[in-house]
Order: sequence, then structure tokens, then C-alpha cells
Amino acid sequence: MYLERVNSPADLKKLDMRELELYAGEVREYIIKVVSKNGGHLSSNLGAVDFTIALHYVFDCPEDKIVFDVGHQSYAHKIITGRRDAFETLRTPDGLTGFENMRESECDAFSTGHSSTSLSVGLGLARARDLTGGHYNVVSVIGDGALTGGMAYEALNDIGASGTRMIIILNDNNMSISKNVGAISAYLGRLRLSRRYKALKTTFKTGIDGVPLVGPSLVKVVERAKSFVKKQLPITNKLFEQFGIKYYGAFDGHNIREVVRMLMQLKTRNHPAILHLVTNKGSGLYEAEKDPEKYHGVEGAHRAAHKYSDVVGCTLTELAGNDKKVVAVSAAMLPGTGLTAMKEAFPDRCFDVGIAEQHAAALCAGMAAGGAKPYFAVYSTFLQRAYDQLVHDVCLNKLPVRFLVDRAGAVGADGATHQGLFDIPYLSSLPNMTVVTPSCGEELAAMMRWSLSFDGPLSIRYPKEYVTDRPVPPVEYGKWTVAEEGRRDVYILAPGSRMLDLSCGSGATVVNVRFIKPLDTAFLDEINREGNLVITVEDGMLRGGFGESVLAYYGENKRCELIRLGFADKFCGNLSVEGALAENGLTSENLEKIIAAHDKNSKILE
Amino acid sequence: MYLERVNSPADLKKLDMRELELYAGEVREYIIKVVSKNGGHLSSNLGAVDFTIALHYVFDCPEDKIVFDVGHQSYAHKIITGRRDAFETLRTPDGLTGFENMRESECDAFSTGHSSTSLSVGLGLARARDLTGGHYNVVSVIGDGALTGGMAYEALNDIGASGTRMIIILNDNNMSISKNVGAISAYLGRLRLSRRYKALKTTFKTGIDGVPLVGPSLVKVVERAKSFVKKQLPITNKLFEQFGIKYYGAFDGHNIREVVRMLMQLKTRNHPAILHLVTNKGSGLYEAEKDPEKYHGVEGAHRAAHKYSDVVGCTLTELAGNDKKVVAVSAAMLPGTGLTAMKEAFPDRCFDVGIAEQHAAALCAGMAAGGAKPYFAVYSTFLQRAYDQLVHDVCLNKLPVRFLVDRAGAVGADGATHQGLFDIPYLSSLPNMTVVTPSCGEELAAMMRWSLSFDGPLSIRYPKEYVTDRPVPPVEYGKWTVAEEGRRDVYILAPGSRMLDLSCGSGATVVNVRFIKPLDTAFLDEINREGNLVITVEDGMLRGGFGESVLAYYGENKRCELIRLGFADKFCGNLSVEGALAENGLTSENLEKIIAAHDKNSKILE
Repeated sequence: MYLERVNSPADLKKLDMRELELYAGEVREYIIKVVSKNGGHLSSNLGAVDFTIALHYVFDCPEDKIVFDVGHQSYAHKIITGRRDAFETLRTPDGLTGFENMRESECDAFSTGHSSTSLSVGLGLARARDLTGGHYNVVSVIGDGALTGGMAYEALNDIGASGTRMIIILNDNNMSISKNVGAISAYLGRLRLSRRYKALKTTFKTGIDGVPLVGPSLVKVVERAKSFVKKQLPITNKLFEQFGIKYYGAFDGHNIREVVRMLMQLKTRNHPAILHLVTNKGSGLYEAEKDPEKYHGVEGAHRAAHKYSDVVGCTLTELAGNDKKVVAVSAAMLPGTGLTAMKEAFPDRCFDVGIAEQHAAALCAGMAAGGAKPYFAVYSTFLQRAYDQLVHDVCLNKLPVRFLVDRAGAVGADGATHQGLFDIPYLSSLPNMTVVTPSCGEELAAMMRWSLSFDGPLSIRYPKEYVTDRPVPPVEYGKWTVAEEGRRDVYILAPGSRMLDLSCGSGATVVNVRFIKPLDTAFLDEINREGNLVITVEDGMLRGGFGESVLAYYGENKRCELIRLGFADKFCGNLSVEGALAENGLTSENLEKIIAAHDKNSKILE
Repeated sequence: MYLERVNSPADLKKLDMRELELYAGEVREYIIKVVSKNGGHLSSNLGAVDFTIALHYVFDCPEDKIVFDVGHQSYAHKIITGRRDAFETLRTPDGLTGFENMRESECDAFSTGHSSTSLSVGLGLARARDLTGGHYNVVSVIGDGALTGGMAYEALNDIGASGTRMIIILNDNNMSISKNVGAISAYLGRLRLSRRYKALKTTFKTGIDGVPLVGPSLVKVVERAKSFVKKQLPITNKLFEQFGIKYYGAFDGHNIREVVRMLMQLKTRNHPAILHLVTNKGSGLYEAEKDPEKYHGVEGAHRAAHKYSDVVGCTLTELAGNDKKVVAVSAAMLPGTGLTAMKEAFPDRCFDVGIAEQHAAALCAGMAAGGAKPYFAVYSTFLQRAYDQLVHDVCLNKLPVRFLVDRAGAVGADGATHQGLFDIPYLSSLPNMTVVTPSCGEELAAMMRWSLSFDGPLSIRYPKEYVTDRPVPPVEYGKWTVAEEGRRDVYILAPGSRMLDLSCGSGATVVNVRFIKPLDTAFLDEINREGNLVITVEDGMLRGGFGESVLAYYGENKRCELIRLGFADKFCGNLSVEGALAENGLTSENLEKIIAAHDKNSKILE
């Protein structure tokens, strides 16, 4: 087994080309094994194994810097750079994270998780190098999907103008998470299928196969490659060249020796360069190759009974069937957000705009201004990308755009970069924004139906799953309901299904806080009595959160005791959802303790 | 005077080509007159007069939708669409806003202010049209500067793929606010200077000059134009064509009849099209043409004595002189943020990345990860664009990126879209972020010097100007100082120069809240006594703001009376700074009233 022999990039460099190919097969098998057990990104990682091996064959980590865009394709990189055994702990609490992570290894040049950042970060590392007199190489690995993100273009514009030395690997598998969309995707498709790519592929495969790349023969091959490259490259690519960046491609990203040769070439260049590699998402696993979307993210052990995204799909399709003005927008997340059903039923009214949240939000603002009824289904963590559009295009104009904020709250194994913990603070400080949260799937459906006639910006936030079905009284603007009757002196204000599950059974009167903003001030006034205990619980940051808004509403008029539970002012790593909640005191045990302490105090005061 | 005859687009259509040109001259003069008095954007508006007239000649507002990107070039549009007399009130409280604004006129298709949104919004309006069976035309007018913003590319990608009918006017003056940067700018430059543009310009001018465009002759001219266009256009433009959008250009944007002819052509097309117009920023005003940067924004009446941006320029240059790792980044705002001095002194360490805040923030994160010491100088309102990068790239990695957050707080005449009222909420809810604010220019310099050795994300927020110089004790992490000794039972916690000016002289002990986050909890504990009055004042939203964080810190331990002053939960229009503060109770009179009420209450309780 080569897998066991490679404990570092230096070990990798001892293998010859044939051995590297065998090693690649073993890495693939190992990834499949671990991901089947722990969950994680499968197809994107299988597609990246070969060129990642080539990268580590040519470059020297940690001195050289490899920035993986999103970082969800960095498993082979982790395995090569000293984390082979630790890889068994992938996505477990205290285990390896699912993305590139500076705190995990000095070989991880940056921490990633969100899309389209690697070019900016890579340019930053390159500029810091030039400034500090360093000599390291910088490689940014970006997928074609991530190229739909606007900040990648902002970076290309700067990279092209600056001429700073760095290498961009365009890992082109014609998929973001679901099938790629947009004009650039179509353009890459044409490029990919061009005769040139096919010709090159054949030449390389038949011409230079089988030569072991070590010792003197390496020199020969490199020389041969040099002259080959001189003749053939750069193949003009108008898009990238118009950004002022030399383009090389397209090459077969699974042909390790081909990629090694190209990288050795590009390493010597003194300008920014794009190496276009065509890869096969899911390469090496038949099922994943055939259905990479399904295998993009694989779930580990447990799956809960009900997914909110299923409710979104059904309900949107229902609403769209009744009202021709209903449209849905997704930013490259049709399956994740549940919009696939809508896309199938109403393809002309369901827009996948690519990884482009800024555009998506402003597009919805424009559609609302034109009289349509847009729903933008997006993960809480990704909606962060559209913060300015929320302020400037949606809220300022008071436009009825409906945000279906999925994966709100703690997200579990996806880890720190994907936590949906900021949306309550960033949404509820915006004027004109209404923020609601359902207590179960039926209530989500009710809220979506209600939203159709609601005339203003609206966010419906919910986590991935819900457990308990609950009775759903009609939705009334700004009004809370009682989810569980209990003591008349202890109230738990619980927004959302998770917080309700946590709170019910505590003996307190548990309030279904359907409206996080505006607050149900009549309700708050009624329970604001001397001797009463009011507890707010929330699946998000305390700072700027729901509890604070209750406290601020009471202000100098507060009579009750008010305890606020939520996430402390630090980032939350890849704990399980339960673990993250527990770390922040969001457990039924803690609620019991708080209530008991209140009772004890009350007795003393009596 | 044609100016007086045109009260609506319909009136404009009664003029012939020659008259339109004369009218254009009058509009220019009128704009110069009003802007000299009221302040506002001058050169961008002068450059847009001619093609705006052409737009209204060809299209029918309000039915047709014209979305002006940023909207700061929409003065001629306002004058044409029934707001000629009202234009005298430009940028005054209750007067016309400086941007396109839906609430101001039904001819304003959308409300704008920030850059690069017009393509997304235009596509939204076009999709809503197709959905609702409408027939109107959609025109998005975008400058070459705004094309550096990533969301414009996100939109181009979607527009190109969708094939939806809309017209994009590329208003190319080779300037954003300061000189344009980036590879795309260089590319447009080459395009602009190509022989083709010049040839076309000549043909049009000599060939079809002088034919009045009304009645039967109009038909003839259109036919002639059609055949001309057929022969000459589209000139291939690889960049836009690779996005799948037909490109027409470049044309002289000051030749009204030429633009009219092209628009009439494009109006009949059933696909998205880009019309590239070359314009001269500041056209018609000699000084503005020669120095458009200076005349981009012109200030009205009063100018305060000290600008924080001057301090930024001097201090950064000083820091960079002492430390080779210091770098500065601007997003197309070198002069506005004061970085011009730094750019002149250290051109290799001052990066203008274009209107690309997302990239700028992630670039800084990368530079910090590589060991450099980056400062990103940016207006509070534009930093909103980089919210996700703040969370994901900077704070999560705890990287020492220093944000110089200019124009924080109320901004006056720039109006609702540019208010810097959200940064305290959105910055202080981020783990690892430190937020400070100076009491005067010398303190800003001290904070910047101190920041050099501070190891973590840091935001320094300040408004445009400061009035009072204050003594500056050394900066100590998390510590406040007393700005004015006063009563020992009344404390005003005042972050920043404006709030200090407001508070001093009230008789209270006025605290210079240098650190908005973290709070000086020792100080807070000390003043938390029964009978004490503590007032927080802040130049930003109350919801999620500084006062709330003080209230939340006290929680159940609060003993003092705590009154929080700040901005209520609604958007703030184009009031003067003083007007905006007054509307939200931030006046010395209100402070006096609050203190008097407290005193009266205390007496009653005695």
C-alpha cells in the first residue's frame, strides 16, 4: 500500500509516475470509505485526487501556498499532508474539518468554506510574498461553479492588472453543487469540447506514457514537455485573456503526469496563469460519477424524519400553481433548498442564478418592483453574501421579497464556516424587515401561504430538520402563540422548532415566537410582572439577537427576571448540533436549573 | 428656452434633433447652476445628459423602465421627467434625492445609490414583465467603473444565459470615481481607442447630420440606420459576447442623433444587448472635464475644519514609512478615503482594486495571512458589501486586518442609501472583531499607530469630519477615558467625536467610549449604582447597537437607570447630519431633558 508510505508531501515525491497513479487509486478508496462512514463531500473530492497529487509532487507545502476554493475538495490534500490517520475523524467533533483550515495544519494556507474566495486570498498571499521578499508559489484551486461568484471576477480583474505571479487551477467539472448554470458555464462547455482539448489529451496519453518521472529521465521529460508546451500553448482563451491572465488548457485533470508537466512549466513563469483542467466529478466511484449531485454531500449516521426543504418544495409548487406571479430563485442550491420540485413543475419560474447571492437578492428586488412575487431560498450562511443588497435594494425600498433562510442556527458537521448563527442579528437590525420562524413543517407552509399577501421584506428562518409536528393556528402579523401551557410565572420565549423542542416539558409556559421581528409587545407587556421569570432561547448569536431585542424593549420598564440563552461571542466549530447547543447552555437541563434557581430566590425573597 | 418647454418625456419628443442638442446645453447649464449651490455629483451628470435625452426620446417613461446604476448620474433624467423646478431642492432636506428614487417619481424605476446593481435589478424587471405579460422595455445604464463590481458579472452571467430582452447602456467614461483600475478597464480602453470606434464616429457625423428626426423623415432615417447597422454591427466584443450578450459599439455618447438611432434599433431586438457609449465625464464644463475626479462630488455650503480622511492619509504614509509590511487597500475611493497621499508616497503598497469590496476584504485577509499589515479604507455603507468576507475570511481566521470605516454614522445629503448607520450592529456581533472610534483626528492617528501591533480584526469607525481637538491619552485595549469630568451620578457614554461634541457641557461625566467592542466592563461596573443615570448615545441604529450591548452586559445586575439614544428602526432619508441626529433625539437639549427628568424622579423618591 502506497497510502501507508506517504506521510508527507516529501514522501510523495519519492514515488514515480506509475506509483502516483496507484497511490491515487488508494486515496480514492480511502476517501470513499471514510465519507461513507462520516458523511462529507464525495464526488468533488474524488474528482480532485489526481491533480492534488500532481500539485504536491511539484510544489512544497507548507512553504508553497495552495488555496482550495470552498475547500470541500481538499480531502486528498489533507491525506497527503500528514493527516492520513486523522482523516478517519473527518467532520466529527474535535476531528478534522471538512474544509481547508489554517488551525488544522500549517499546510493549509487559508481557511475556506464559502465559494469564490480563493482568487482574492491567493492574490493577497502573493502580494504579501512580494512585499516581504518571500519566494513561495501561490496556487488557487477554483471550480467552474465558483467562477459564477462575483468576487472571483473582482479578483480576476485585479490579478490581471497587477501581473502578480500566481497560478490559478480551474477545476472544471461542469458542476457547482447542482448542474452549473449561466453563460460562463456554457462558454466553458464549448471550450471543454473543443477539438484542441481532445487532441492534446490524446497526444499526451499516447506520446509520453510510461516514462518514470525520477532522476535523469525527469529532466528529459521536462525538456520534452517544455518544447511541447512551447508549440501548443497558450491556447488563446478570450475570456481570461481579456482579464490579462495567460490561459493554458484545457487538459485532462486526471492525467497526473500531464498535470505535473504543466505545473512544472507554470512554476517558472513570472506572471499570473490559469491552468484549465477538465475533471470528472465523482471520478472513481461509478455511482458518484453517474449522479454527482446526489453524492456532492453525503450524510453520515442519522437522518431526521422531516426536512424543511421538502416543505419548501411542495409549498412553493402549490403557491406557483395558484398564482402566476410566484417565482423562485436559488443560488446554485436547487436540491439543498428543496427547489428541485418547483424547477420541475415550473421551469420558467424557477431561476438558478449560480453561486451569486448578491445578484439573486437584487434580482428578486427588481422582480418585486416589477410586480412578481419572488422567493429566494438560500442558506443562512450564504445570505451573508447579500447583506448589502438586503439593506440597499430590498429593505430600503420596502419590497416584498421573501427570503427562505435555510440551515439557520447551528449546522453540525459542516462546521464553523457554515454556521447560520448571524442571521437574527443581521436581519433584525434592518428597518422594514420582518423575521419569522416556523415551529414545524406545517407552520412553515402556513407562513409561506401567508407571505404571499404580505407586502414587505420577509425572512423565514429555519434549520435543516424538524422533529415534532405541532398544531398551527392561523398566522397573524406580529403575534406569538402558546405552544405549551405551563406555570403562569415562568415563560420561555422560543423561536423555531429546535428551541421549542428544547423548552417543552420544562413546566414553563412555552411561547412559540413566530415573529422574531417585530416582537409581540402586547404579549411581552402581559408577562412583564414582578416575580415572573422570562427566558429567551435562540439558535443564534446573543449579541444583537432576539433576547437582546426583548431586553431592549423592556428597558427601564422591566419588572420580570429576564434570562437570555443563546450563542456566546465566539465562533462555533464543527460540533454536532446538540453539542453546539449544549456548549451554549441550550439544554433542557440548564433550563430546569435556571427555573429552580429562580424558585429558590423567590422563596428567599418571600 | 427649451428647458422651460420640457415638463415631461412627451414634451421632449416634440423637439427635433437640433433642438434636442440645444436643450442638452440648457440642461447642462442648469445642472451646473444647482450643483454649485447645493452640492452633488457634477461631472458624471454632465457626461450623461446627451444619452439620457436620447433615452427619453426613444423610450416612454414611466411605462418603460430605466435603471441608472448608482443613480448619481440621473439629474438630467429627473429634470426631463417632471422634476425641473423641484431640482432646485436637490439634496436638501425634503428636497430631491441625489439618486434615482422610486418614492420620488413613478419615472424612477428603482431606487439606487450603491454601485453595480442595475443589471440585476434590470433583469428582475424584465423577468417580471415576461411573467406578467407586460411589454415594456428595460434599460440598465451602467458605468465602466461599476463593471468592476462582482455582482455586475453575476448578473451578466444570468442575463447572457437567459436571453431575456433588455438593453444595457455601458456609459464608458474611463472613470469610476477616481481613475479606473483593473484589467477590464484597460481592456475597455483598448476597445475605446480602436480604429473602429473612430471610423464609426466619423461616418455618423458626416453622413446623416442635420436631418430632423420627425414625421416621414424619421422613417427614412431609421431605415437608413437599419441598413447601416446591419453592415457595421455588431462589432465583435469577445468579453461581452462570451457572456452571451450582443455588443454594439463603441459610439459617441454625446451625439444625440447617433444614440437615438442605435436605441431605436435595439428597441426592436428580442435579446439582451449592450450599447457601448463613450462619454466625457464633465462634458460641457471645462474645469470638470479637465479634473473630473475633483468634480465627481461637489460639496454645498459648509465645510468643516478637519477631515478624518486627511489624518488617514498622513498617518498611513507615516506608518508605511516605518514598516515595510504596511499596505493600504481602497475600493475605487482613493481620494474620498484619504489614501491619495499614501498612493503617491508608496505606489507599490497602495492598491486600488476597483469597486470591489468583497475582493478587497478577502485580499486583505490573504495579505494578513501572508504576514503583511493591511489597512482597508472604506465607507461604512460600502463595507456592507463585504459582510460575508468579514465573517468568513477575516474574523473566523482572527486575522489582523484593519478596517478604516469612513463616513460612519449619519452622512447628510448623500441620503438614505449612503447612511453609515449599520456598522456598529453588523461589526459588533462578529466574534473576534474589535471596534473602536476616535474622539478627534489626533486620536485617530493614535489608534492607527496602536493598531499596527494589534493582532486581530479591527474596525476604526469615524464620520467625515470632526470639530474639536481633544487630549489623547495612550490607547489601552478595551479601556475608556473620561472626556469631561462632571456630576458623579450622571454619565454619558459617548462613542466618537460627534457624540462627544453633543454630550460635553451637559454637566454629566462624559465618557470617551474609544472601544465600542469590547466594552470597558470595569468602568461599567463602577458606575452601575442605584440612583445613577447612565445615558448611551450613538451615531447608528439602536437595534443591535452599542447601547443594547451595554444593557445586555448589565442584564439582571443593572442597578443604574440606563437610557439609550440612537437611531430608531427606520431608514433615514437625506436629512442634514444635525437633522438626522435631532430626529432621533440626539441633541444636547434632549440630554438636558433626560437629566432633568432623572433629577425630578430622584427627588420624588427621596
